Amino acid sequence: MLNETMPHWLTKQAELSPHKIAIENTDDRTLSFLQLEQESKTFAKKIATLGIGENAKVAILSTNRTDMVIAIHALSYLKAVAVLLNTRLSKQELQYQLKQSETTLVITTERLRNDKKLDFPLQKTYSDIQVLNEAEIKLPTQINVQDPFTMMFTSGTTGNPKGVIHTYGNHWASAIGSMLNLGLNKDDKWLLTLPIFHVGGLSILLRSVIYGMTVFLMEKYDSNQFYETIMEKKITIISLVTLMLKQFLKKVGKTPLPNHVRCFLLGGGSVPEPILKQVAEKQIPLFQSYGMTETSSQIVTLSADYAFEKLGSAGKPLFQAALKIWNQNEEGIGEIVVKGPMVMKGYVNNEQANESSFEDGWFKTGDLGYLDEDNFLYVVDRRTDLIISGGENIYPSEIENVILGVEGIVEVAVIGRKDETWGQVPVAFVVRSCSDVSQQMIDEHIKIKLASFKLPKKMYFVQSLPRNASNKIMRHKLKDLLEE
Amino acid sequence: MLNETMPHWLTKQAELSPHKIAIENTDDRTLSFLQLEQESKTFAKKIATLGIGENAKVAILSTNRTDMVIAIHALSYLKAVAVLLNTRLSKQELQYQLKQSETTLVITTERLRNDKKLDFPLQKTYSDIQVLNEAEIKLPTQINVQDPFTMMFTSGTTGNPKGVIHTYGNHWASAIGSMLNLGLNKDDKWLLTLPIFHVGGLSILLRSVIYGMTVFLMEKYDSNQFYETIMEKKITIISLVTLMLKQFLKKVGKTPLPNHVRCFLLGGGSVPEPILKQVAEKQIPLFQSYGMTETSSQIVTLSADYAFEKLGSAGKPLFQAALKIWNQNEEGIGEIVVKGPMVMKGYVNNEQANESSFEDGWFKTGDLGYLDEDNFLYVVDRRTDLIISGGENIYPSEIENVILGVEGIVEVAVIGRKDETWGQVPVAFVVRSCSDVSQQMIDEHIKIKLASFKLPKKMYFVQSLPRNASNKIMRHKLKDLLEE
Repeated sequence: MLNETMPHWLTKQAELSPHKIAIENTDDRTLSFLQLEQESKTFAKKIATLGIGENAKVAILSTNRTDMVIAIHALSYLKAVAVLLNTRLSKQELQYQLKQSETTLVITTERLRNDKKLDFPLQKTYSDIQVLNEAEIKLPTQINVQDPFTMMFTSGTTGNPKGVIHTYGNHWASAIGSMLNLGLNKDDKWLLTLPIFHVGGLSILLRSVIYGMTVFLMEKYDSNQFYETIMEKKITIISLVTLMLKQFLKKVGKTPLPNHVRCFLLGGGSVPEPILKQVAEKQIPLFQSYGMTETSSQIVTLSADYAFEKLGSAGKPLFQAALKIWNQNEEGIGEIVVKGPMVMKGYVNNEQANESSFEDGWFKTGDLGYLDEDNFLYVVDRRTDLIISGGENIYPSEIENVILGVEGIVEVAVIGRKDETWGQVPVAFVVRSCSDVSQQMIDEHIKIKLASFKLPKKMYFVQSLPRNASNKIMRHKLKDLLEE
Repeated sequence: MLNETMPHWLTKQAELSPHKIAIENTDDRTLSFLQLEQESKTFAKKIATLGIGENAKVAILSTNRTDMVIAIHALSYLKAVAVLLNTRLSKQELQYQLKQSETTLVITTERLRNDKKLDFPLQKTYSDIQVLNEAEIKLPTQINVQDPFTMMFTSGTTGNPKGVIHTYGNHWASAIGSMLNLGLNKDDKWLLTLPIFHVGGLSILLRSVIYGMTVFLMEKYDSNQFYETIMEKKITIISLVTLMLKQFLKKVGKTPLPNHVRCFLLGGGSVPEPILKQVAEKQIPLFQSYGMTETSSQIVTLSADYAFEKLGSAGKPLFQAALKIWNQNEEGIGEIVVKGPMVMKGYVNNEQANESSFEDGWFKTGDLGYLDEDNFLYVVDRRTDLIISGGENIYPSEIENVILGVEGIVEVAVIGRKDETWGQVPVAFVVRSCSDVSQQMIDEHIKIKLASFKLPKKMYFVQSLPRNASNKIMRHKLKDLLEE
């Protein structure tokens, strides 16, 4: 396991299972591993003519498409780094990430190019690339596990979004850890409807080439299509977030779940008890999990067997991973720190964040939690103020910074409000210098800077924000206020 | 994956699946992972009082027993190295290995101690150890993947047996490679009847703690018990050699194979076509494989799907492994060389063998083979003259060296003869200085030096041995002679 190189994953899988289906989908192309390998190599040789080579940063701004899968593998054949952009972000947010990542080429779709109108010299759609000639180059047959493969941005409690670099070794360890946890069947087919630009979606693609497993790719989540695909397409594993689970439960009604479904892997926050009751009634094999971009997807999982016995727990760390709770208070609650080969090496160009995030080889998640007497993890609070809305992470500080830029705003605090559909939605408490400032005016200003899912659903104008002795905003007081 | 440490396998599994059965067997103890962890730790603290600590070499001379499993894990808790001795070897052969390995303690059974009468100062039976006090020491919670874990001896075409060191990383990579190849089901139960002192048996034990999988342990192979266990004990995977397969086929007759059996993993040589026909008729999921002690068990496997299409092939290298054929002749036949994280780092105290076995990071197996147009491996000749008899490797040179030590012997060559039961048995061609020298006389001399399975089943007295221009014995001519 300490060899620095291993056979290139896709090349190897094309060798082991050439005719097995790698990518299946609703209306697009279906590809075997051999076809996926060939198309990825062709794509690589085409973008090589644009000057893309070792260590180049190439951004992909795309919905889940077979083309996107090909592009990602193509970049690995050039030893370039795939910078995965969230299609829901605003132009300004995207521009920031392009600059930070030192991207030299953006690969995108026709629609997204027209929608986002990025200020970027070298943008190519999939169709643009199709007509390029192929460079005459020799592609590597090995990968170096220490090399960076992908980059994606995540926000924190303070400051700007940070670029997380995943090496091949990180993704490998994540795939192996998941397999040791969930097992691997010859007929596995994993439903990929989470966005590939998030690590939860990307990791399914990489498991596919490492396991030799079929992925059923959905361009975007649609509750009807989601339900029908699970019921009819011999899906065995589904990655999903709570919102999807709720909608699935509604649709499934009294229909029995088909035998082929063996795992619903749930990320992005714990599940409310009433939902868990329905899960149990319908005998849905639900695996709750805890993870983040920095851990290359799940690092802690609760198996279906324990869903009720350990209600609300995120489970135990994967086989190669370890977990501790640091700086515990008298109730045993403290910061969750993790260690393992799936944990990123660090943030890109951000020494400060790296120094504050790692200590003695442990990654400090910033989340609070505790362990019960059987060492099951309970996450109490995600990074204190993180809002999770329909599976997307929203950091209040990002929204606050933008609102503070609007004229007439004195101070602002954003918190999450419980929401039937999305789990949580952001709402803002605003102190204004003049009563002419309205929610509409603020929205006008911030909607060009923020992804729409980050726009506060409601703004409460207040005289002042509750602060503690050291002048920090007491967000829990705002939550109490909301409940009243 | 490049982290140097990971959680101790057994400790971690006892944490993840405390109540799952680790070891099940016919008449001995059944242990959960938690019990196995506790017993192994207790055993470790007991032998620590004998001075066993980090890097100590501790030989285990034992049949497959739960005690043996505990002893192996116990040694890992002391960071000591388990030297696994073949119980079928003669006293002289064992003494050589004890010396070479620098063993300081021998753990054995009552019966084997009395049988072998080793000249060794510190020998303890399992019962001796049971009554020891426990040292007050803290056991490690992590393993270092670069550390040596086990050592076992293998012979070569020339010279004395060589000690192969397996690190934790080697065993880990082997277990992961096997899982990627065969999959992993929640209800897997692997039948372990191969001797644990061979890598084929040992590797099952280590997969057990890495996967969290039950092992059904048989003290020794017995064809009736083997058949009944497979049929009745919900076994899903069976490691076996051709002899066992033949006997199983006879017994199974027209009885359908139970659904729970999903893989017969066959090592030690390819399967004759008539047997494969029966396998197909009975729809037995047979996976043929190729591997050796140096590769920590299988490194190339032929999945059941290809058993007929690629008749006689050993398959393709595991996901993390690579294979090449060096110095090919005009038919494409050459030396099989392999690379991968499951390949040992080297032989113990044997610089010469290490130098000649490795080149540019590739391990030279000494076996001859070729690849077909689809890159499937065909092994033509195992290390030129290796004899595989009932799953045991026999090196002619070892036997020849012993026979040459008998008075009145001028020269000798040992080759394998086809055998209905054992696959092959060794036979010797002997040139004697005087016709008084008989097979019985030779046997008398050599049986104290050689394991009984190595004793030539027949000796042919000849005037001279066929040699080529460079004076090397032409073994193929002897094979022709045998067939006549």
